[in-house]
Amino acid sequence: MRDISVSGYLDSYKKKTNPLLEDYLNLKIKEAEKIGSLPAALLRKFAEIAKKGKRIRGALLVLGYEIGKGRNINSAYDVSLFIELMHTGLLIHDDVMDNDSLRRGLKAVHTLYHPLDYGRSMAINAGDIAFYLSWDKLVNSKFPPDKLIQAAKIYSEYLPRVIHGQVLDISSEAKEEPSEGIIMNTLKYKTAEYTGVFPLLTGAALAGLSDSKKLNAIKKYGLSLGWVFQIQDDILGLYGEEKIGKPIGSDLREGKKTLFIDYLLKRGTNRQKDFILSLLGSGNIKLNDFKKAQRLFKEIGAYDYVIQLGWKYVNEGKKTVDLITENSSLRKLLTAFIVFMIERTT
Amino acid sequence: MRDISVSGYLDSYKKKTNPLLEDYLNLKIKEAEKIGSLPAALLRKFAEIAKKGKRIRGALLVLGYEIGKGRNINSAYDVSLFIELMHTGLLIHDDVMDNDSLRRGLKAVHTLYHPLDYGRSMAINAGDIAFYLSWDKLVNSKFPPDKLIQAAKIYSEYLPRVIHGQVLDISSEAKEEPSEGIIMNTLKYKTAEYTGVFPLLTGAALAGLSDSKKLNAIKKYGLSLGWVFQIQDDILGLYGEEKIGKPIGSDLREGKKTLFIDYLLKRGTNRQKDFILSLLGSGNIKLNDFKKAQRLFKEIGAYDYVIQLGWKYVNEGKKTVDLITENSSLRKLLTAFIVFMIERTT
Repeated sequence: MRDISVSGYLDSYKKKTNPLLEDYLNLKIKEAEKIGSLPAALLRKFAEIAKKGKRIRGALLVLGYEIGKGRNINSAYDVSLFIELMHTGLLIHDDVMDNDSLRRGLKAVHTLYHPLDYGRSMAINAGDIAFYLSWDKLVNSKFPPDKLIQAAKIYSEYLPRVIHGQVLDISSEAKEEPSEGIIMNTLKYKTAEYTGVFPLLTGAALAGLSDSKKLNAIKKYGLSLGWVFQIQDDILGLYGEEKIGKPIGSDLREGKKTLFIDYLLKRGTNRQKDFILSLLGSGNIKLNDFKKAQRLFKEIGAYDYVIQLGWKYVNEGKKTVDLITENSSLRKLLTAFIVFMIERTT
Repeated sequence: MRDISVSGYLDSYKKKTNPLLEDYLNLKIKEAEKIGSLPAALLRKFAEIAKKGKRIRGALLVLGYEIGKGRNINSAYDVSLFIELMHTGLLIHDDVMDNDSLRRGLKAVHTLYHPLDYGRSMAINAGDIAFYLSWDKLVNSKFPPDKLIQAAKIYSEYLPRVIHGQVLDISSEAKEEPSEGIIMNTLKYKTAEYTGVFPLLTGAALAGLSDSKKLNAIKKYGLSLGWVFQIQDDILGLYGEEKIGKPIGSDLREGKKTLFIDYLLKRGTNRQKDFILSLLGSGNIKLNDFKKAQRLFKEIGAYDYVIQLGWKYVNEGKKTVDLITENSSLRKLLTAFIVFMIERTT
């Protein structure tokens, strides 16, 4: 393996998987058409959103497969889409729960139908079908049954935890002073584990990696990577540009318990707290107020604090890289990947 | 195998699986508790509903396993719960979509939380976790990987079709004159296939049955059985007693396109049609009006028609029994099972 940049790796992953995803979804849409035009139309809408993903998790599965010295890289590309299908399903359900209207630059599924109750029902169905297509992709892929069952066990171990994290997330009341521990717990299950640990472990399992020291190092690295991803997600949610494909400031609008809020509630003045609390969960935030909030989080040091927390995890992750693989190109890529997670702008 | 009645078979299935389901759910609740009290509480609510199922589908899986001459009957009992977990998940999502408040005699999940939006989100999560626990149960069961993958392929083939059927169901407008073909198509995917064909085929696959003639006969029998189940469901929805565990008349209240409505729209007088159309989707039906509707469907012959359609499928199903197995006790049981489906009162 030659040295390759993270963006090069992700681009190459996308190029390899674009036709695979396209063909798979077209086949499933054709099957749906036999049942009815409405199910097929819903699947088409799902497909549009599915194709626009960053595909970080799918690429991480392939990376895990390479770490495990797997030899059927084309089968790894193909099977990796199961994670992307599931991920898109989770996002569609997430958008219903958070009442978000934009996803990957497209209208969220539940906003595409009228009335809203019907839209929500259609979005529930779109997510449900995504979960089953995800399994369909996994169990029909070209790996021997024992490897597939190992991957399936990892899948069914991690995913219930994602849903538990989602329960914590939608139950959080930002206005109460949350402990950083509770926030981190929510983010761990809701995002970090399944973004970082789950794909890498699955790829390694499909390759047949069984060295428990390496597997443990992958878990540590993956969790750090997942944290960095989530922390940068929170940062982009406040300071990102429209190109992230979802509305900036939606965390505030929805009253989400983020690290920014936690920092402010602990160290802000009463006046600062009152201002932010007045915005939380308000449903709609004026641009001026939003800009004021952006400045406030910088002024009181929340921004620096969150960024530094991100870099802490970058460095923790880096430390595990040498334990994961002897391959120097892969080591460089793993190191660059976790840095990329904090430097990403989308 | 000695001759056994259907209710005896179902009772014995329940007795065997009660402790298995209890232990499994308790373990998963314990795991959820490590993540948070709210996810554990949601899972407890899910568990209550899961335990109250009729478990027809789980029992059919075991029956399929016996047809396939499987020898690890205890493992079959254990794995069969994967269908019951998934089925409960589907019902929870279904109740959100249909806005039903009662399920298996318990409050529907989405009604257990306030406000309603939050309840719906929790119910979406409860269903999502059920799907993943279902896979967890399947892939961790005591069958060799190749058999498990075969079962998993059947699972991921049939379930997307259930969701497609659900899309058709929630999109149906009872006020338009639907063709019987469209109604039957919806019911086929939404219920009949996954109630009858899917569990029997899965059990047979886990037992290693590969005789394609027998498998085809199982498919035919299962589809007939599934139809009978759905037809009786529609009948109980209008003429059942409260013990069915969901509100009588909810199909009317929700404006569902049923065989009763189809019959009426085709053969009723304008006055009769106007009366029924005024009730459809009205959200609330007065007891007097409901009783009048019950009488009307009997007077115009809809009731007889639907019952006879049910018996038609009973007879079609019976014809396939001898092709499925040489075992005379199993033949008797299969024959009795499809009759039981139309005679059931819950």
